[in-house]
Amino acid sequence: MVEDLVITYKLLIEYDGTNLHGWQVQSGKQTVQGLIESALEVVLGSRPNVVGSGRTDAGVHARGQVAHFCLESEVDVWKLKASLNGLLPSCVRILDLSVAPKGFHARYQAILRTYHYYVSTAPRALDGHLRQFVRPEPDFVAMNIGANILVGERDFSAFCRTKSETKNRVCRIDDAVWTPEARTGDWYFSISANRFLHGMVRTIVWTLMEVGHGRRPIDDLLSILESRDRRTAGQAAPARGLVLEQVTYPDSDE
Amino acid sequence: MVEDLVITYKLLIEYDGTNLHGWQVQSGKQTVQGLIESALEVVLGSRPNVVGSGRTDAGVHARGQVAHFCLESEVDVWKLKASLNGLLPSCVRILDLSVAPKGFHARYQAILRTYHYYVSTAPRALDGHLRQFVRPEPDFVAMNIGANILVGERDFSAFCRTKSETKNRVCRIDDAVWTPEARTGDWYFSISANRFLHGMVRTIVWTLMEVGHGRRPIDDLLSILESRDRRTAGQAAPARGLVLEQVTYPDSDE
Repeated sequence: MVEDLVITYKLLIEYDGTNLHGWQVQSGKQTVQGLIESALEVVLGSRPNVVGSGRTDAGVHARGQVAHFCLESEVDVWKLKASLNGLLPSCVRILDLSVAPKGFHARYQAILRTYHYYVSTAPRALDGHLRQFVRPEPDFVAMNIGANILVGERDFSAFCRTKSETKNRVCRIDDAVWTPEARTGDWYFSISANRFLHGMVRTIVWTLMEVGHGRRPIDDLLSILESRDRRTAGQAAPARGLVLEQVTYPDSDE
Repeated sequence: MVEDLVITYKLLIEYDGTNLHGWQVQSGKQTVQGLIESALEVVLGSRPNVVGSGRTDAGVHARGQVAHFCLESEVDVWKLKASLNGLLPSCVRILDLSVAPKGFHARYQAILRTYHYYVSTAPRALDGHLRQFVRPEPDFVAMNIGANILVGERDFSAFCRTKSETKNRVCRIDDAVWTPEARTGDWYFSISANRFLHGMVRTIVWTLMEVGHGRRPIDDLLSILESRDRRTAGQAAPARGLVLEQVTYPDSDE
């Protein structure tokens, strides 16, 4: 009964993607998955496959990426977490490592993903690596009206990278709103959905920014959606402002 | 009537102090004051004296440092701000540059200064340069009771660096509280006062941390204050978590 011995471990991961080539392993490049698998190999002597809730592109950050891996033995999770953080570069931190419920799968069982896109309307010295500087200040009220048009279950083909091989382009957006941050005058966009297509958040952000800068009417959002044609939407916003904030599972407390 | 031609300019400055030697000019070292004066010299051809609201130590950050300088000519503030940000390293940003009311003085007219000290109870990848990692998690409730003892107008000699030449050691603390941050489980300490002595915020933070870790009883705070003896308080907390958030003037909107 070898299967009985398989234990699934769940990781909660924060990373500064500035100098990383995204989540997925690529030969010869520093990726989050690759760095974690290499660190696990150093500690465990074998290299488990680390499965993320989803792939993030080069330059994209995460405060709440979730991943899992399986081992045929029980390990001290506290010690393993400490070892991983000792081995990983400081741009990747394991925030939590725990034994997951039997059959847990970081990708297939996620029911909600939340991304934030941070912009600054003034140049920033303290967190410039986490924000896209936008000038002039866009009309966030118009952008919120536009964002609201996207809420619901729809075909997001027009916001999906053309080379993507994903066939099902229907996503259910639960929430999409721009919020001002206390005191600084900066804003962030929060978007939650059951799933996201390749490049979708960044394309939505940039298209809304075009609305905010008066380069598109608000109701373009509806016609873009209905076109299902990638060429109708704006380009993808730069990765620097994008953070995967949270991945939710059916048994999550939050 | 040469004095009539003197115009005072007010700067709002953000900086990441990680790789800087604090505010004040020191020969051969990168300081905020020195960098700004050098950038002004490049643009204006002369080097005005830039007066800050107060000096920050090496490694300390600011999101709301205020400074002023005087010129005998009128300049286009928008252009000058853009030029300064073009010349300064990205760890120093001029957020605002404006003509100040006649006689404005960044240091003497400040009526309130607010510092935050950020700690993380888990290792951080995204903003580890702005937080002090503390382990184990301290008792923030006890620390808030301790912090509250410090509120009011008192002699803070016990929290002032011994080599400081400041004679008046009386400060009026309006507010001192530890607050949890949304979602992350991290905390920050916010302290506002009419003035701060050398090393005072960091010494308060570390002494409170000792309370939070059970290494001091809460009422030590009162006996430390009354002793007026620097040796009774704890050491200074590391600079990395400290941010000068805001300086308030009588005419401020906030």
